[in-house]
Amino acid sequence: MPRFFLDITMSLDGFVAGPNRTLEQPLGENGERLHDWVLRLASWREMHGLEGGETGPDDELARKTWARVGAGIMGRRMFSGGEGPWDADPNADAWWGDNPPFHVPVFVLTHHEREPVVKEGGTTFHFVTDGIESALEQARAAAGDKDVALGGGASVVQQYLRAGLLDELHIHVAPLLLGGGVSLFGELGTDAPSLKLTRVVESPLVTHLSYDVAR
Amino acid sequence: MPRFFLDITMSLDGFVAGPNRTLEQPLGENGERLHDWVLRLASWREMHGLEGGETGPDDELARKTWARVGAGIMGRRMFSGGEGPWDADPNADAWWGDNPPFHVPVFVLTHHEREPVVKEGGTTFHFVTDGIESALEQARAAAGDKDVALGGGASVVQQYLRAGLLDELHIHVAPLLLGGGVSLFGELGTDAPSLKLTRVVESPLVTHLSYDVAR
Repeated sequence: MPRFFLDITMSLDGFVAGPNRTLEQPLGENGERLHDWVLRLASWREMHGLEGGETGPDDELARKTWARVGAGIMGRRMFSGGEGPWDADPNADAWWGDNPPFHVPVFVLTHHEREPVVKEGGTTFHFVTDGIESALEQARAAAGDKDVALGGGASVVQQYLRAGLLDELHIHVAPLLLGGGVSLFGELGTDAPSLKLTRVVESPLVTHLSYDVAR
Repeated sequence: MPRFFLDITMSLDGFVAGPNRTLEQPLGENGERLHDWVLRLASWREMHGLEGGETGPDDELARKTWARVGAGIMGRRMFSGGEGPWDADPNADAWWGDNPPFHVPVFVLTHHEREPVVKEGGTTFHFVTDGIESALEQARAAAGDKDVALGGGASVVQQYLRAGLLDELHIHVAPLLLGGGVSLFGELGTDAPSLKLTRVVESPLVTHLSYDVAR
């Protein structure tokens, strides 16, 4: 049975973006530092059509994760940083140019309808306006035998956690305090699902914590 | 040079106590689950005058940590759960009975003066009303060649972090989502100190993350 998992980097103080996000600084103040660990990896560079990069435990883990993914889900804010109607969104074409690093169908949760956008390299963005369950159903259909990855942002993560739809959490804890910004888990309430720690992988730059979510 | 370190357990969503704290339930809803990992340890039981308990990586780590400690610091809320004048605090004698598990001098930050309370087993509670720097200075003097441990709560931790006075953070991440309550780091602001990951110890029940704080 294919799995639905979250894969995201947070600071030790629980933020997935720093304070004061702008179009120029979509991850807020110091937020880019969250991803210091991933940008140097050989597997990340490969997905972006680049050569070189580091191998080692972080790279092996990232490579294994990405190999599982048959489709992705993300929120509108992660896609473009914007909100509201698409024709008023200055970043409606998103952050990733003509050849995004996903190379699979990606389902974007939004309140505003839009035709699919076909990019190079296998990434097609589909826009889903009828809720998180529909997005998951469509992503599962697109992924076939492979898994579905949820990338963020925090609001979508919290919605899927509250709905009990996630199978696994893979949290990369970056060794920094962002001091504010977008809280990954927020305040889920006391009916938040139970977790079981399944794997810890460490490196000097990040700690990878994996959990199964009790259904 | 002796060190000043934080040692505390938080949930994956960053809380050190759950929602709705009361005198009967000082760690809030589900908050007791934070400490599932520690209550079973041989070293914890020994500190509480009990026999038996589990050995293994968690126990070794806890034993090494407690052996470093020459004095402790904690906040008033952690001490009694109360606030305001001592004669109106129904838990003014704290949670730990006649023989608290600390076995060293403990400096309690409070706005209300009080004579020291001498307990059995080496624990004396000293009440400090002139601020976090004074408490640290007094604790260092009491600790001699040993280190000073900060136990919480969150408000005191945030004050010491903002003041740049902590040398190390030892965060035990419990595999659960409390869904609300007392956030360990809160929103420290963008001048929060930098961290360097120094150690990861894992077990099925908890992940121990250690960081040096850049001064």
